[in-house]
Amino acid sequence: MDRDGRPALSRRSMLAGAAAAGVLAPAVAASGVAAFSAAAGAEAASASAAAAGQTRQITLYAEPMPNSTLIGYGLEPGKPTIPGPLLEIYEGDTLEIELVNNTDERLSIHPHGVNYDTNSDGAPFNNSFNNPRETRVYTWRTRTTYQRDGVYMPGSAGFWHYHDHALRGDHGTIGLLKGLYGGLIVRKRGDLLPDRQYTVVFNEQTINNKIAPDTPMFVANQGERVEWICIGHGNLLHTFHLHAHRWADTRTGMLASATDNTPVLDNKDLNPGGSFGFQVIAGEGVGPGAWMYHCHVQGHSDSGMSGVFLVRNPDGSMPPGAQAAIDRFQGHEHTGMTTTEMKAMGAEPVPTGPHDGIAPIAPDNPSAKKVKKSQPTTTTTPHNGHK
Amino acid sequence: MDRDGRPALSRRSMLAGAAAAGVLAPAVAASGVAAFSAAAGAEAASASAAAAGQTRQITLYAEPMPNSTLIGYGLEPGKPTIPGPLLEIYEGDTLEIELVNNTDERLSIHPHGVNYDTNSDGAPFNNSFNNPRETRVYTWRTRTTYQRDGVYMPGSAGFWHYHDHALRGDHGTIGLLKGLYGGLIVRKRGDLLPDRQYTVVFNEQTINNKIAPDTPMFVANQGERVEWICIGHGNLLHTFHLHAHRWADTRTGMLASATDNTPVLDNKDLNPGGSFGFQVIAGEGVGPGAWMYHCHVQGHSDSGMSGVFLVRNPDGSMPPGAQAAIDRFQGHEHTGMTTTEMKAMGAEPVPTGPHDGIAPIAPDNPSAKKVKKSQPTTTTTPHNGHK
Amino acid sequence: MDRDGRPALSRRSMLAGAAAAGVLAPAVAASGVAAFSAAAGAEAASASAAAAGQTRQITLYAEPMPNSTLIGYGLEPGKPTIPGPLLEIYEGDTLEIELVNNTDERLSIHPHGVNYDTNSDGAPFNNSFNNPRETRVYTWRTRTTYQRDGVYMPGSAGFWHYHDHALRGDHGTIGLLKGLYGGLIVRKRGDLLPDRQYTVVFNEQTINNKIAPDTPMFVANQGERVEWICIGHGNLLHTFHLHAHRWADTRTGMLASATDNTPVLDNKDLNPGGSFGFQVIAGEGVGPGAWMYHCHVQGHSDSGMSGVFLVRNPDGSMPPGAQAAIDRFQGHEHTGMTTTEMKAMGAEPVPTGPHDGIAPIAPDNPSAKKVKKSQPTTTTTPHNGHK
Repeated sequence: MDRDGRPALSRRSMLAGAAAAGVLAPAVAASGVAAFSAAAGAEAASASAAAAGQTRQITLYAEPMPNSTLIGYGLEPGKPTIPGPLLEIYEGDTLEIELVNNTDERLSIHPHGVNYDTNSDGAPFNNSFNNPRETRVYTWRTRTTYQRDGVYMPGSAGFWHYHDHALRGDHGTIGLLKGLYGGLIVRKRGDLLPDRQYTVVFNEQTINNKIAPDTPMFVANQGERVEWICIGHGNLLHTFHLHAHRWADTRTGMLASATDNTPVLDNKDLNPGGSFGFQVIAGEGVGPGAWMYHCHVQGHSDSGMSGVFLVRNPDGSMPPGAQAAIDRFQGHEHTGMTTTEMKAMGAEPVPTGPHDGIAPIAPDNPSAKKVKKSQPTTTTTPHNGHK
Repeated sequence: MDRDGRPALSRRSMLAGAAAAGVLAPAVAASGVAAFSAAAGAEAASASAAAAGQTRQITLYAEPMPNSTLIGYGLEPGKPTIPGPLLEIYEGDTLEIELVNNTDERLSIHPHGVNYDTNSDGAPFNNSFNNPRETRVYTWRTRTTYQRDGVYMPGSAGFWHYHDHALRGDHGTIGLLKGLYGGLIVRKRGDLLPDRQYTVVFNEQTINNKIAPDTPMFVANQGERVEWICIGHGNLLHTFHLHAHRWADTRTGMLASATDNTPVLDNKDLNPGGSFGFQVIAGEGVGPGAWMYHCHVQGHSDSGMSGVFLVRNPDGSMPPGAQAAIDRFQGHEHTGMTTTEMKAMGAEPVPTGPHDGIAPIAPDNPSAKKVKKSQPTTTTTPHNGHK
Repeated sequence: MDRDGRPALSRRSMLAGAAAAGVLAPAVAASGVAAFSAAAGAEAASASAAAAGQTRQITLYAEPMPNSTLIGYGLEPGKPTIPGPLLEIYEGDTLEIELVNNTDERLSIHPHGVNYDTNSDGAPFNNSFNNPRETRVYTWRTRTTYQRDGVYMPGSAGFWHYHDHALRGDHGTIGLLKGLYGGLIVRKRGDLLPDRQYTVVFNEQTINNKIAPDTPMFVANQGERVEWICIGHGNLLHTFHLHAHRWADTRTGMLASATDNTPVLDNKDLNPGGSFGFQVIAGEGVGPGAWMYHCHVQGHSDSGMSGVFLVRNPDGSMPPGAQAAIDRFQGHEHTGMTTTEMKAMGAEPVPTGPHDGIAPIAPDNPSAKKVKKSQPTTTTTPHNGHK
């Protein structure tokens, strides 16, 4: 434990454990133990130790969610999630996605922020989609900042996302409503890695296709570095607000120096097709407890676009008052638009079962992932056969 | 007078005079004359002369507005305003707010941008609110940019705001409609102070709960440095536009150097929960006169989300044509949404009396404050008794 | 041809050829061949060779569009376009616009980002407009970043726009609906000039008052540097998305260095009164082909707010699959809001004739301009008589 009560090696183990948790680690993780050993004592530098230009292959499965009209992407057959798995690569690397369409409808995957040929566009007008029950490979490339004509042109690093662009239409409108979306991070080598990651998608009047009190509860221990990936979809104006924590309006959410005058925010527009990400130290300067995150469009928060960011004590125990706050959150009346009204405007809330209290990060909560404190292992992504 | 026709000591006197004008001066002002003397001849540096870590205490009163269904925060009993008083502190300092609830309903105060325990969250789910007629203390702390894990994490400096989070609901929706909001500035020591400050809140289809021609007229003399604090609330998309003046999209609205390529704006999204601020030199390069500020969403400006920024001559006299423009503004037909339609969608215009021409900054116009050209005095904020 | 397959002199010829194409070149272009010769071998520096402080004069004609209820600005009588001509000046220079009102209604021109007296405000409340059939001169001045009180105040450089502020109302609402808008670029001397420029105006649920498949097709050859000027108008939330290309959120869309952490975007809010611009290398890292640009608000793209960015092969020939994609785009069903519904909410689609396939940049497509590969000539803007 360092002075913040944070496990000192957590960021390294994240890279290794992530794959086991159903999440694509940055490409560098493919080289497994060796890469991490080389980086011992210099966490942030570990990624830089690997060479750029690697290619990773994964398989995604687009499948109906159980007992639902929704559809999700998943890393294993029979395990679709909403949002889909958080994908991560390093600038310079390539990701080959074999998309298995286990539905009876046309669909696709279209990424933001990366490079792809028209063949991997995911847009029907480029004939780039999976027919029903068809498997197709999409290739996403990335590049670092480059100089051209004496100026610096941007690379691919950023907090991006991917989504369907073909289900029952030309722009992915129905695919998005049904849950075919996920987060995509392209990091620069050397970027500081977090202890935990949360994906928050404001999709119509839902968060990750759920409304309060069924929205994801994100859990961390005081002092952990947690990363938020925020994505907007649908038709509506949204503003993402996080209580008691803030970030800089940069690529990483951090500042370049103590005199950097980039605006600092705790509330940011999160509109269709947009995305951003940032890291905060959980409970830093404010202590542990239950903190709200929500859309600040008043009618949206009232009708269920809010959730809980639970910051536990540094040792993982519950801070005083937190359970009572969560109980209040789960019991309180979410006024405003009714579920019927929401459905009428296109959003489709997920059918949910009984709530399980503060259950930290349920296995079926794909929007939150925690590092497993296991030994680093070589990541072996399931991949069947297109080459 | 300096070469711009601006009183050379105005920024210093502002700090001292502000408190008398019903506005909380930055904490450094509490040390009064001494601090300012130390800074003679180096205005911008004056703030830096004071030590960080001070604690200020103020009392706010939440009370019904006279002859209205609205509610405002005020610094004195019987004097609620909409927006509430503009609060200012320096990074590193702490503000203790004793909130006296002089209404018969539950309400609270919730800040953006600063640090607070769950106890001071202002959110009902943290049991943080004032019961009817109850007094409660909320503590807001701030911190400077700090290094963690080799990177710079943002401090609290920025143009923020505060608002109710508890009136008749869990998210402050009704409190905001009724006027329970205000601006909050956290400055870095050394930040350049303005001559005048204007708070502009786009709240549903109103500006500061008023519609044209009753929106605030902001007045300055040519060459004065004026600061705009812009805040968004409610449910709607808004874009703030100021005629003939512009700012950089940084924390302060200024650039770091002549080659800084931060975007420069004269129109910026101002959506629910968002806020920004900037300084302009009144009439710089464009001359004195009556300039419009308005929401650039066309239906919003047409229905009354517009106002006048009156730049007088350097000596305070009226420039040619300005009075005629103001007369036109006050007389012209504001088309678009009717007041009835506005009310139907939740906005509640303030009942207003007869217009008083260009009355520069009426005492009942809390969104504008002017420096009093008095001697610096020690600020003594009214404070009754919780410690 | 340089290594990117781009004509090496295209940026220089653009400045000269632009005027012939009906576009105002930066003021420096007025000095014609001499200025450009001086910059041989150093394109980006060419602009710097000219002295600041020049005044240019142009005449704009506001006229009804043929066979339409729309109105456009044009550089020649009888040739109004929507959007109006893209105007460009260098920081420090002045633009005098003689606006000829060839309609029977009051109208005006109001710019963003530049300096003007109240007389040139374009706002009726300042009595600044053209009566029916009246000619009036508006003067726009610009200035570079300047120091005041020890800080850097922003200059005028940016991607801005101009629009009516007086037609049948006080805020230009009807003028905007009818097409009275255009792009305005203020460059810093030394800014890198593009090979091609596209103006994209999201105006209610149209792009440049057109809906798919009649939205503009923007065409470039692989490797060309193309500049997008994006402007928002009307009442609605919009987000601009470009497939397979991205930019930095700076004044120019480029980064300051390889470690600049400004966010990189491929999707940005484009709301009423807002504007931004950026340059991309056509097809860079993704190859030639037909790429979509569209509003990412799903209902908007579905109802016709989408278009094609056609990147041809470096030699100008069509890449495989591009024509098929364009055919699909022009034939496919644009679902969502019907034209009738759109009209009901104020947008007025342009009546269009038969589609002409990929017709690269039709003469009647004012939103795209291509450099003529002619010899540099002195620009002589038509100008009749007000001084």
